Amino acid sequence: MADKLPSRSEDFSEWYNQLVLRAGLADYGPARGTMIIEPYGYALWENIQAYLDKRFKEYGVKNAYFPLFIPQSFLMKEAEHVEGFAPQLAVVTIGGGVELEEKLIVRPTSETIINDWVSKNIHSYRDLPLLLNAWNNVVRWELRTKLFLRTSEFLWQEGHTSHATFNDADQFALAMLQVYKDFYETQAATPVIDGKKSEAEKFAGAHTTYTLEAMMGDTRALQSCTSHNLGDNFARAFGIQYLDRSNELQYVWQTSWGLSTRSVGGIIMVHGDDKGLILPPRLAPTQVVIVPIYRKEVEQARVMEAATRLKKDLNHFRVELDAREGLTPGFKFNDWELRGVPLRVEIGPKDIEKNQVVLARRDSGEKMFVPIEELLPTVHQMLDNIQDSMFARAKRFQEENTYVVDTYAEFKQRTAGEGGAGFLLAHWCGKASCEKSIQEETRATLRVIPFDAAKEKGACIFDGAESGQRVVFAKAY
Amino acid sequence: MADKLPSRSEDFSEWYNQLVLRAGLADYGPARGTMIIEPYGYALWENIQAYLDKRFKEYGVKNAYFPLFIPQSFLMKEAEHVEGFAPQLAVVTIGGGVELEEKLIVRPTSETIINDWVSKNIHSYRDLPLLLNAWNNVVRWELRTKLFLRTSEFLWQEGHTSHATFNDADQFALAMLQVYKDFYETQAATPVIDGKKSEAEKFAGAHTTYTLEAMMGDTRALQSCTSHNLGDNFARAFGIQYLDRSNELQYVWQTSWGLSTRSVGGIIMVHGDDKGLILPPRLAPTQVVIVPIYRKEVEQARVMEAATRLKKDLNHFRVELDAREGLTPGFKFNDWELRGVPLRVEIGPKDIEKNQVVLARRDSGEKMFVPIEELLPTVHQMLDNIQDSMFARAKRFQEENTYVVDTYAEFKQRTAGEGGAGFLLAHWCGKASCEKSIQEETRATLRVIPFDAAKEKGACIFDGAESGQRVVFAKAY
Repeated sequence: MADKLPSRSEDFSEWYNQLVLRAGLADYGPARGTMIIEPYGYALWENIQAYLDKRFKEYGVKNAYFPLFIPQSFLMKEAEHVEGFAPQLAVVTIGGGVELEEKLIVRPTSETIINDWVSKNIHSYRDLPLLLNAWNNVVRWELRTKLFLRTSEFLWQEGHTSHATFNDADQFALAMLQVYKDFYETQAATPVIDGKKSEAEKFAGAHTTYTLEAMMGDTRALQSCTSHNLGDNFARAFGIQYLDRSNELQYVWQTSWGLSTRSVGGIIMVHGDDKGLILPPRLAPTQVVIVPIYRKEVEQARVMEAATRLKKDLNHFRVELDAREGLTPGFKFNDWELRGVPLRVEIGPKDIEKNQVVLARRDSGEKMFVPIEELLPTVHQMLDNIQDSMFARAKRFQEENTYVVDTYAEFKQRTAGEGGAGFLLAHWCGKASCEKSIQEETRATLRVIPFDAAKEKGACIFDGAESGQRVVFAKAY
Repeated sequence: MADKLPSRSEDFSEWYNQLVLRAGLADYGPARGTMIIEPYGYALWENIQAYLDKRFKEYGVKNAYFPLFIPQSFLMKEAEHVEGFAPQLAVVTIGGGVELEEKLIVRPTSETIINDWVSKNIHSYRDLPLLLNAWNNVVRWELRTKLFLRTSEFLWQEGHTSHATFNDADQFALAMLQVYKDFYETQAATPVIDGKKSEAEKFAGAHTTYTLEAMMGDTRALQSCTSHNLGDNFARAFGIQYLDRSNELQYVWQTSWGLSTRSVGGIIMVHGDDKGLILPPRLAPTQVVIVPIYRKEVEQARVMEAATRLKKDLNHFRVELDAREGLTPGFKFNDWELRGVPLRVEIGPKDIEKNQVVLARRDSGEKMFVPIEELLPTVHQMLDNIQDSMFARAKRFQEENTYVVDTYAEFKQRTAGEGGAGFLLAHWCGKASCEKSIQEETRATLRVIPFDAAKEKGACIFDGAESGQRVVFAKAY
């Protein structure tokens, strides 16, 4: 706590690494690439889970649990799928003291093991749609760890659904993408661009991958979730058929969709500042912290009593009273600012006399006196206000760092250097070879083909071939 | 659905296996020993989680997440611990395509990896108590699978706490045992016997293991949770020390406590009957099912409209309307009885005329007419009533199958044969050798040294040595 955080503008990466550790969000696990999610970080994840779980269930999605261990042969059944994941697998070769006959893969995702079960549980059109979700841990081997963003094990939810038609599946994949968008915009105060991935960037085994891209505070992009229309790829690989109303066998059409603890990293990188985290009120584990202020011991009892009463008044919110002894108010202010608590209530002997408190906003630093009888409605209104301001600020930042780029010279100039390049709106002809060359030459990747781009004729930024709309390129995490 | 379940009294084991599969609670995973928890079983687990999570948090426990993979060297640090778990480990030897330098153990429990983190995060008495819990999956290799009861992977919560004194830790371990007892008695309608384990049966690395034992429907015992006072064993192994108020270094005192998806198996085995599950109302995923009854198509619209209105009236409960077409009411009754839904509401054309419904209790089979305007309070009262009756019935069963045994001849006679032996209250001198011999000769194990046993002098059932109280022996899962 003694040292200051590295400056966000000077060294964004180190600012992030230090902040995650110091704010008590996460720590490095002992096995390479693993992460410990500490109580404060996990509480944030619990709030994310609560929102999403409720939304999924409104669509009739049911939670289930599928095994951690996948027989190697299962993963091989869908060719693109195994090719995509092979380099990232962790493999169990010993169980109960003996060498296993068939090696077990620690799940990198559960398409194969879920579809084996689905194949036995779908018989007729009456069984459709089958809407499943699992909250679990998955493992994808990583050598360079970045907490929340790139770890060998992470937590997520993975939804897996089966439908009677291609169109039903496609609509459902899009509906879940909208749930994620609602989550980012209304809960995480994070503007996102929705659209689809190019063929090169789509999920191994998908027909179409839909995604949300968000801009971090260094103007890099973060893929914030994915929702896949799997077509009938896994249905054919696993023989998942149903009898339709005409009593004919048909393959099902499927989706899968996931959002992970990576989202916590996004929230840190979108909103934080040089003092630490700034958490959106709807997700903050602590929404309001009360800091009692007294200099002499004679004041302590009276102030603590008033502060305890305040805590009770505010128990509709996620509120904490910082009763730690032997720490100065200044130390406590810094500590709660580091942890990004949206609102701070200060109360001291003079405030008690005047029947008021001081209210301080984490996002703007603004401080104001509030009469105690107006505290409850003021806190309520202020939290909404902070939530809205945070979204508006992030939206403005994203817009200010989005560039319409028409020449490859400008594209190269904008992507030169080590930092982020913002979102670059450029024409692309659709060829994977152009996409690959751009990436190799500039380290910018095609993040998303946005849904709401204007239909506008243009020339591919790389080879000049015809293009029907602009896409988003960026340097990404 | 066509075949009847095996009879519970004739083949309890096969009745259980079939019931778990047919009721849609769980299925076998493709890798040996693994389990798929299907949506209905998982919904039950979610209700268990919701109750426990709330109770833990009332004690100030915070959730966190620790890595799945534990370096082999960590597990070796506590000698008893590694010895206890060595035969059950799953080992990752390949990661990202290469042979690992240090093998990784898939966690069988997280004492070691959590205590490594704890050792870095406790400095002074101000950091105590440190109260952590994790909801996760663990792996303990099993060759003979029994769904929910014995699987290589299972879900659970594991609490881990650190305290300033032995006594603080002991009190906390007992407080968590009481939370579990409250859960079993008030939610799972299951009477339990609380007490401690013998030295032979305690957790590998614990000072004392507390436990709850419940009697299943075949009179076998099921260990329903454990709560360990770990003493300072792990604190010494991991060097977890704090500065006390006199500025002297002290080792912390610790607990760990867990309840797993095994509890779902217990609920099935305590309450089910030949028709299927009987779920306690407080945990049932569906508390009330509405079955519309119509013979002709002309009746259908009117009945469905009334049934839909009923569902809305009852939306305070977890209610489902069985609107499946092409299935007879009789088929639906059997189906929901198999799935153990506590209350069934039947509504047909005659009921609509009379402004009534038929209410049927799953536990007793009792049916009654209820005027629609009295339905809401009646359902409320009936669910409480069922919950209480289920507990009372299980309690009576436990008492009827508990025997005071004073001679080893009677002990052997009661434990002869393949079935359960009930709870045998017998004197035991405290020697591990007697305990071991009894187990070898009778297959009954010492389940629990009950807290509330009368202090009564007696002679050890095996060797006649002096004993101060009776303990509970049983054949167990």
